[in-house]
Amino acid sequence: MKAAIIGGGVIGGGWAARFLLNGWDVAVYDPDPEASRKINEVLANARRSLPALYDRCLPEEGTLTFTEDLGEAAADAHWIQESVPERLDLKHNVLGSLSELAPETAVIGSSTSGFKPSELSEKGARAIVAHPFNPVYLLPLVELVGDGVETDRAAGILRSIGMCPLIVRKEIDAHIADRLLEAVWRESLWLVRDGIATTEEIDEAIRMGFGLRWAQMGLFETYRIAGGEAGMKHFMAQFGPALQWPWTKLTDVPDFTGDLVDLIAGQSDAQSGHLSIRDLERLRDDNLVGMMRALKKNGSGAGDIVSRHEQALPHREAEDLPVTGDRRIPQSWTDYNGHMNEAPYLEAGAAATDRFMEMIGADADYIASGKSYFTVENHLRYLDELKAGERLTITTQVLEGEGKKMKLFHVLANGDGAPAATMETLLLHVDLTTRASCPPASAVAEKLAAYALAHRHLPPPDCAGRFVGQKRSPG
Amino acid sequence: MKAAIIGGGVIGGGWAARFLLNGWDVAVYDPDPEASRKINEVLANARRSLPALYDRCLPEEGTLTFTEDLGEAAADAHWIQESVPERLDLKHNVLGSLSELAPETAVIGSSTSGFKPSELSEKGARAIVAHPFNPVYLLPLVELVGDGVETDRAAGILRSIGMCPLIVRKEIDAHIADRLLEAVWRESLWLVRDGIATTEEIDEAIRMGFGLRWAQMGLFETYRIAGGEAGMKHFMAQFGPALQWPWTKLTDVPDFTGDLVDLIAGQSDAQSGHLSIRDLERLRDDNLVGMMRALKKNGSGAGDIVSRHEQALPHREAEDLPVTGDRRIPQSWTDYNGHMNEAPYLEAGAAATDRFMEMIGADADYIASGKSYFTVENHLRYLDELKAGERLTITTQVLEGEGKKMKLFHVLANGDGAPAATMETLLLHVDLTTRASCPPASAVAEKLAAYALAHRHLPPPDCAGRFVGQKRSPG
Repeated sequence: MKAAIIGGGVIGGGWAARFLLNGWDVAVYDPDPEASRKINEVLANARRSLPALYDRCLPEEGTLTFTEDLGEAAADAHWIQESVPERLDLKHNVLGSLSELAPETAVIGSSTSGFKPSELSEKGARAIVAHPFNPVYLLPLVELVGDGVETDRAAGILRSIGMCPLIVRKEIDAHIADRLLEAVWRESLWLVRDGIATTEEIDEAIRMGFGLRWAQMGLFETYRIAGGEAGMKHFMAQFGPALQWPWTKLTDVPDFTGDLVDLIAGQSDAQSGHLSIRDLERLRDDNLVGMMRALKKNGSGAGDIVSRHEQALPHREAEDLPVTGDRRIPQSWTDYNGHMNEAPYLEAGAAATDRFMEMIGADADYIASGKSYFTVENHLRYLDELKAGERLTITTQVLEGEGKKMKLFHVLANGDGAPAATMETLLLHVDLTTRASCPPASAVAEKLAAYALAHRHLPPPDCAGRFVGQKRSPG
Repeated sequence: MKAAIIGGGVIGGGWAARFLLNGWDVAVYDPDPEASRKINEVLANARRSLPALYDRCLPEEGTLTFTEDLGEAAADAHWIQESVPERLDLKHNVLGSLSELAPETAVIGSSTSGFKPSELSEKGARAIVAHPFNPVYLLPLVELVGDGVETDRAAGILRSIGMCPLIVRKEIDAHIADRLLEAVWRESLWLVRDGIATTEEIDEAIRMGFGLRWAQMGLFETYRIAGGEAGMKHFMAQFGPALQWPWTKLTDVPDFTGDLVDLIAGQSDAQSGHLSIRDLERLRDDNLVGMMRALKKNGSGAGDIVSRHEQALPHREAEDLPVTGDRRIPQSWTDYNGHMNEAPYLEAGAAATDRFMEMIGADADYIASGKSYFTVENHLRYLDELKAGERLTITTQVLEGEGKKMKLFHVLANGDGAPAATMETLLLHVDLTTRASCPPASAVAEKLAAYALAHRHLPPPDCAGRFVGQKRSPG
């Protein structure tokens, strides 16, 4: 699959990264001589954060090319994304040319935050609005506005690259999210201008309070909870009248003077000037990954989008031994020593055990039926350091697989295929009702026995059956 | 320390929980015969979530009492919090009485979201605004408005219970956060009323996009990044003019008709009606804890507030052996088997190793100086299941502590003091520059040797030096 990225700023670069890291080839068209440098900077950020959302590997990266020929960019493309500056005449020009050059089957999306599809197509261009949010490689939301057949087709493609399409029912200036952002922006400018709060205080008022609610549930579901058992009507009866109170400066627009710009820029420097934009971007991305992984644990919001995408990623094929893990190491797994902390080795190993359980039929349905394996012992040997972003692949050898017992030996290999750790793990099959051990169902027992038989002919692992601190035997 | 909670709804209950779980005694005054049930429901939610933010135990819970006598509630209180319904005459009455009954040294705070301190004190009451956000036991933000000496004193107390006071410079209707919320609420009502989006679509537009940004950085720092290296002025030059565009319905207020209420309540039922309010609350709290723990990892926003509070919590005293861990188990550590997953045992054990390293002087400063211990082997034995919310205490015995080697034996005990797991861990001292092993600094070596000597006289741990699956020797 090929995407053409027309305009390579922060937004275009984010689109390029999102497609590339999902295995698409990407052709970038941007007359700016700095385009390649800028895109590669965005791409560096994306490579250190997007794969960290997943507990499986994304597809192999596609190929990135730059071209000065719009037709070459658009040729054979399945998705064409325009992210040029917000000037309608410019959009008319670019989208008009693309409509002629693009394959008929290609989606032509515009990243515009302000223009409606009817405005984009005034001069006959074929395009829908596909409005993403920065950083495009991490935030799932894309607002789709335009022809229903086109937006449906676009939605399918966006889901396949891990995004969350939101089809807007009727076109409106600024779509949905930016209308809400604009309301907050305007009110915030008033608060700063009138000396009620600094930029930093407004940020604190957001991120220490309702920002944490909105990252997971949005506005209405949050208020539904506030209404309690009495529900949404109760909430509205309580708070509806506030609409008439003088709580916002809605009826007025602040004068956008040089003084106001200086005031805000000065406060922003005082707040965040000690960090470079790169530092801030990385902190933002690490926080986004951490929060999205937390949401993933509970199947909520953006975390649910990641889970669905992850489940669609293929498992790696077995070679000599079953491959029970294949992933990139997230920043949140690293520690003050600058490498992967000791605990995530076990987290990765435990996930490999889960994957092996799936392979022998002890999967989620089996567990829901009231049976599972519980770990009784683990022995980890740390052989090499691992860094954030590095690839980690796990293979599993069955050492014992009879009766209630299952003993596995995981080898955790780094990006070069060299062992970075081993984990010997002993599990007992249990009845989840009595919490007592019991034999597995026969289908599970048979699959496990087949692996145990096949692996019996393999050389035994180097260091199984050893105690902590045991010297390696000579030879 | 004692807090008096006047009005025991969701907000009053949240305040009660926040104080109680931080070791304060709490007296609740509320004429509602259901007050005790309601407060205890909020408290149950708080007990399962607030301790999960921390990797140390909070103080022992204070004592909760209910009284029908305002004077008894206020007697000897250090903080008195009024959370009665938003009617000014009612607030005047309650705050007037409290001003007479309360100790002079007590902070009198009002949870009002709408009234200004000058309005609250019209009839002579002494009170400041201390406006919290639901759920009060998890969200750090409290807006403080009023007399500077009082708000400063209040801020100190709020920090000691893990909150983030924001002192508002000038009083204004709805303080700061609710002005922003009101702007979004009003715009959202328009979008629903005009059929542009449903409540669910608006929630998606928030939580899949800018909600994730705002949970960590707020509005201005996010836009600072969007401006890139060119900075905030560049951003404003680009987006300032949008203030004049018709992006919001600012100049108009939607009619708050029964039809609009029905439309919103109906959409909200369709969106979230399959979950009870209790389910939604628990999901919200689990998500908040997970996201705040992710932010804590990076020292950002609400996570930084938790870290600072945690560092002020005392370590538990050693008994026979040093106590290297004492905490509650967060929900995020549990798995599909309904108990603590195998990996967090090692996460807790690794934290115990870190704590022991601190105790021998191999602390953050030592690591910053270029030396540390790396783990080379771990052997975990799982003896009993642990549940979310359960207390986990870790004691550590030194098995070896000479030269580059440090071998520790952690016992992880459950709430009853019974061993739930053991972890034998072997570490090597390393030079972080060369990544090669080397002897520790003499001060560290001496402290470690002293522990090793003291522990040599203790009985050896039951199951050290064993391999995986090794049978216990008879007797």
